[in-house]
Amino acid sequence: MNFALLSRLLGAVCLLIGGSMVFSLPWAFPGLADRKFAPAADAVEWRALVGFLASMLICGVLGAVLRRLGRGSRGHTLYRKEAMAIVGLSWVMATILGAMPIYFSDTYIAPERPITFVEAMFEAQSGFSTTGATTLTDLENPDLVSHCVLFWRSWTHFLGGLGIVVLFVAILGQGSAGKAMMRAEMPGPSKEGSMPRMQHTALVFAAIYIGLNAILAVIYLAEGMTVFDSLCHAFGTMATGGFSTYNASLGRFDSALIEYTTILFMILAGTNFTLLYFCSIGRPRRLWRDMEFQTFVGIIAVVTAGVIFFGISNQDEKFETGGSALRYGMFQVVSVITTTGYGTADFDSWNNFGRGALLLLMFVGGCAGSTGGGMKVIRHILFVKILRLEIERAHRPRVVRLLRVGGQAVDDPDLAPGIMLYFCLFLALFVSSWMLLVTLEPDRTWGVVRTSDGAAAVANDTDNPALVQPPVIETPQQRLQSTLDEKLLDSASAVAATLNNIGPGLGVVGATKNYAGFSQPAKMLFVWLMMLGRVELFSVLVLLSPNFWRRH
Amino acid sequence: MNFALLSRLLGAVCLLIGGSMVFSLPWAFPGLADRKFAPAADAVEWRALVGFLASMLICGVLGAVLRRLGRGSRGHTLYRKEAMAIVGLSWVMATILGAMPIYFSDTYIAPERPITFVEAMFEAQSGFSTTGATTLTDLENPDLVSHCVLFWRSWTHFLGGLGIVVLFVAILGQGSAGKAMMRAEMPGPSKEGSMPRMQHTALVFAAIYIGLNAILAVIYLAEGMTVFDSLCHAFGTMATGGFSTYNASLGRFDSALIEYTTILFMILAGTNFTLLYFCSIGRPRRLWRDMEFQTFVGIIAVVTAGVIFFGISNQDEKFETGGSALRYGMFQVVSVITTTGYGTADFDSWNNFGRGALLLLMFVGGCAGSTGGGMKVIRHILFVKILRLEIERAHRPRVVRLLRVGGQAVDDPDLAPGIMLYFCLFLALFVSSWMLLVTLEPDRTWGVVRTSDGAAAVANDTDNPALVQPPVIETPQQRLQSTLDEKLLDSASAVAATLNNIGPGLGVVGATKNYAGFSQPAKMLFVWLMMLGRVELFSVLVLLSPNFWRRH
Repeated sequence: MNFALLSRLLGAVCLLIGGSMVFSLPWAFPGLADRKFAPAADAVEWRALVGFLASMLICGVLGAVLRRLGRGSRGHTLYRKEAMAIVGLSWVMATILGAMPIYFSDTYIAPERPITFVEAMFEAQSGFSTTGATTLTDLENPDLVSHCVLFWRSWTHFLGGLGIVVLFVAILGQGSAGKAMMRAEMPGPSKEGSMPRMQHTALVFAAIYIGLNAILAVIYLAEGMTVFDSLCHAFGTMATGGFSTYNASLGRFDSALIEYTTILFMILAGTNFTLLYFCSIGRPRRLWRDMEFQTFVGIIAVVTAGVIFFGISNQDEKFETGGSALRYGMFQVVSVITTTGYGTADFDSWNNFGRGALLLLMFVGGCAGSTGGGMKVIRHILFVKILRLEIERAHRPRVVRLLRVGGQAVDDPDLAPGIMLYFCLFLALFVSSWMLLVTLEPDRTWGVVRTSDGAAAVANDTDNPALVQPPVIETPQQRLQSTLDEKLLDSASAVAATLNNIGPGLGVVGATKNYAGFSQPAKMLFVWLMMLGRVELFSVLVLLSPNFWRRH
Repeated sequence: MNFALLSRLLGAVCLLIGGSMVFSLPWAFPGLADRKFAPAADAVEWRALVGFLASMLICGVLGAVLRRLGRGSRGHTLYRKEAMAIVGLSWVMATILGAMPIYFSDTYIAPERPITFVEAMFEAQSGFSTTGATTLTDLENPDLVSHCVLFWRSWTHFLGGLGIVVLFVAILGQGSAGKAMMRAEMPGPSKEGSMPRMQHTALVFAAIYIGLNAILAVIYLAEGMTVFDSLCHAFGTMATGGFSTYNASLGRFDSALIEYTTILFMILAGTNFTLLYFCSIGRPRRLWRDMEFQTFVGIIAVVTAGVIFFGISNQDEKFETGGSALRYGMFQVVSVITTTGYGTADFDSWNNFGRGALLLLMFVGGCAGSTGGGMKVIRHILFVKILRLEIERAHRPRVVRLLRVGGQAVDDPDLAPGIMLYFCLFLALFVSSWMLLVTLEPDRTWGVVRTSDGAAAVANDTDNPALVQPPVIETPQQRLQSTLDEKLLDSASAVAATLNNIGPGLGVVGATKNYAGFSQPAKMLFVWLMMLGRVELFSVLVLLSPNFWRRH
C-alpha cells in the first residue's frame, strides 16, 4: 500500500469538499437568496455561516496536512489496490467532512432536539450516496434547519451524483489510474467498449450531467418554482437522490406538470450515460436499441400497470380516476426503480400488491453507468439468463451455450460467477443487516415500551421524535398490535431502502415518515449500508480485510 | 428420453405406493387399534376403508399398465437424464396417488367443509416432502378426519423420510443407475467419498432410519403415549416431518421428558446419515469431528441462547424461569432448524428477535445426507467461505487460495459456482413465489373484505375456515389494521416454510394456525414449492424445460 499517494489524494478530496461548501454560503444571507418562509431567522443563518466557515477551515487545514504528508508521491503509479482504497476512504472522509457544516450549524431534528454527529453523518452520507433518506422531521421551519443546510444537503446530491470519483478523474486527471478508478466507481458491469480516453469520457459525462441539471432547473423555474427550490430539486432528481426542501417532498407543489417533468428526468438519470452521450451526438437509435434500457422502461410500464390495476380495483385514494392513478402510480414506481425516493403519494398506504412490488423494485435500481443506485437492471437481466442456462446445463452438461446480451455472446468466463457472487453478497449483507437491526433496535422505535411487570404498553410520544408525526391508529391497544407486528417488515424495508440508496421504505420509514426515530447505533448502520450500496459493495468491504493494508 | 424405461419405473412407484396403503388399514377397524377418542365413528371408518381400497385398486391398475407399456426396457441403462425425470415424475405421481385415500375417505377440513382434491394433494405432498404443513383444522374430531387418514399422513412422512428414491435404490436395485439417482436425490453436496456400492449404502441407511424410528416409537410408548401416537410421532420426528395427531401438536402431551426426547431425535434426524453409520459401527469420533455437525450444533446453541436471552428480558410467557425458557426455546429452535415443525410454543407470539431468528433458521435446514430439508448447513458454511475468499480475491487477483472444508482443500472448480447458483436460484424462486402469493391471494385470507364502497371491513369468520380458530385481536378495527398489514410478512413466511419443508411459519400460518385459509391456487403453489424444496430444485425445474423431453 502506497500510503504517501493515498495521503496526497485524500488531501485533494478534503480541499474539494471544503471548497464546495462555498456554494451554500449565499443562502445564509437573507434577501440575497429567494426566501420562501416569512421572517428570516437571522440568528440561525448567522450561526450557519459560522458553522460553514469553521467546516471549511477544518477541511482546508486537514487537506493541506494530508497533501504535505504525501508530497513525495508525485509521479507514483496508482495501482488497482490504491484506487480501491481511495474510493473507499474518500467516501468515509466525505461523510465525516460533509457532516460538519450540518452539525456545526446548530441544526435540530425536532423542536428542542439538536442533531447528533451521527445524524449529521447520516444526512451527509445520504446526500453523497444520493439516497435521500433524512432524519430531519421538519424541513420547513427555518429555526430548526437553516437554508444553508438545506442547500448543502442538495448540493451533496449533486456532488455524489455522478460519483465523486468521476469528478476526480475529470478534474484531478490521474491519467493511467483513471481506468482502475473508473472500474471501481462506475456502477454496474461494463458492457460497452468504452471510449479510448477515460479522462475525456469523464469530462463528457460530467458535461452531460451538469447540462441536464441546468436544463431541469430552468424548466422547474418556468413551471413556477423559486430559484432555490428549482436548484435543490434539480440536484435531487438528476442525482436520483431525493432530498426535498419540503416535508411533503415533491407532492408539496401538487402540480401534474412538475411531476411528469420529474418522471422524465428521473428516467434520464437512471439511463446509462453512454447512451445519453450517443443521443447528444445525434445517434438516438443506440438508446432505443439498448437491451438494458428497453428492459428498464418495460419494468416501469409493467409495474405501473399492475399498481394501477390493483389500486383501482381496491379503490384506493388517488386511484379514483385513470388519469390520477397514472400520475401517482407512475411517479412512485419511477421514483423507486430509479432509486430517487421523491414522493407524491404514500405507497405504504397502498394495497399489499403495491407495497410488495415497490419493495422488490428497490432492488432493481437504474441502468449501469447511470446515477441510479440499486443492483442495476443489467445484473438482473444477466441473472435471469444465467439461471436459465444453468438449468439447461443440469441435464445437458456437454452442451455449451454462451451467455448472450443484446445479440452478442459474452466470452468473459468470470462474468457469470461474478454476477452470482454479487447477488450472494448482496443477499448476505441484506439478511445480516436486517437481523442486526431487528436485534439492536428497541421496540420503543415502534412506539412500544415494556412496563415494570413486563407487559407491553404504548410509549409516550414525546419520548420519540419519530412519533411526533401523528400515527394513523387511534387507540393505544391498536397501535401496540399493528405497529410492533410490523417491526420485521419495516426493518427489512429500511435496510433495503438504504442499501439500495432509495430513501423511503415501508412503515416507520414510509414516504410520510423519516429515519429520526431510530436509535444512534441503527443510524450508524444505515450510514454504513448507504456507503456500501453506493460503491457497489466491494470497494468498501475490502477495506475491512486486514490483508488489504499490508505493504506489497 | 427412454420413455419405456421411464414408464416401467413409474409403474413400480405406483405399485409401491398402493402397497404401502395397507399399513393404514388396521386403524380403520375400531377395537383392533388403540383408540383414544371416545366413540368410534364407525361409519367414518368404513368410508375410509372403502376409500383406501379404491385408491389401492387405482394404484394397482395404473402400475400394471405402466409396467406393461415399458416391458421392453428391461436391461436398458438408466442415464442421468432419465434418473432426473424419474425423481421429478415420481414426486408428482406420489402426490397425486397419495392424495387419493385422503380425498376418497370423506375427509373434512372443517365442519361442513369437505376437502378438495387440491387440499388432499397438499396433505400428501406435505407428507412425502416431510414438510408437515396441514390444511386440516381439527385433527381430533374423528367425524372430520378418520384414524386411517391420520396414520396415512404420518406414514407418508416415513416413506418420504429417507427419500422414496433411496428406497427404490435399496429395494428395486437399479444397479448402476443407483449412483445417478442417489446424486439427484441425496440432499446436499456430497462431501464424503461414499461407500463403494450405492445399493449397499442405501440398505444401510434404510436400516439405520428404520431402526431409529423403532427405537423412538418404543421410547414414546414407555413415556406414556399410545401405540398409535408413538408410531405417528416417531415417523414425524425421524422424517423431520411434523404431522401430529393433535391440534396442539406435541405440546398436547405437556411433558418435558417427551419434548427432550424429541429434541434429541430431531437432532439425530438432521445429522448426516453417514456419520450416524460411523457411530453405529463404533466410530463416534467421526461425528464429533465433523465440521458440518459442529456448526449445526453450534447454530442451535447460539440461537437458543439468543431466544432465551431476549425472551427472558421481554418477560414472555413460558420464559419466566430458566428451565422453562430452555425447554420451550430449544424445542422451537431445533424444530425449525431441522425443518420438523413440531410446536410446543407459538414462536409467532415471541418478540421480534425470536420471530426474525426463526424465520432465518428456516433457510438453514439440517445437514447434508439427513432427512432434514432446507438449504443444508454445509451449503451455508461453503457460502460464507466463498464470499470471504472472493472479497480477498477482489484486491489480490493473483493470489490463489483454495476453498477448505474441514481442513481439506476442495479442488472441484464447479463447487463454488454451484453453491452460488443454488443460493441465487433459491432466492429467485423465493422472491417470485412470494410476489405471486401476495398478488393472487385475496385479502379475505387475512380476514379483510372490501365493502361495496371500497372500504375495508372485517370478513365474516364463518366464510373462512382459517379464522375458525379465534384470533387474538378483539375489535374489528384492530384486526383490520394488524392482520392485513401482516400480509407481506405472512406470505414470505408461508413461502419459506413450504420451500424449506418446515410447516408452520408466522401470522396466518403460525404454529397455532394452519394453511386451510388460503385459496386453492395458493395451495397448488405450496404443493409445488414443497416438491421443489424437497428434491433440491434442479430435478423438478428441469422438467419444465422443453429441451429436456427431446429424444437424444
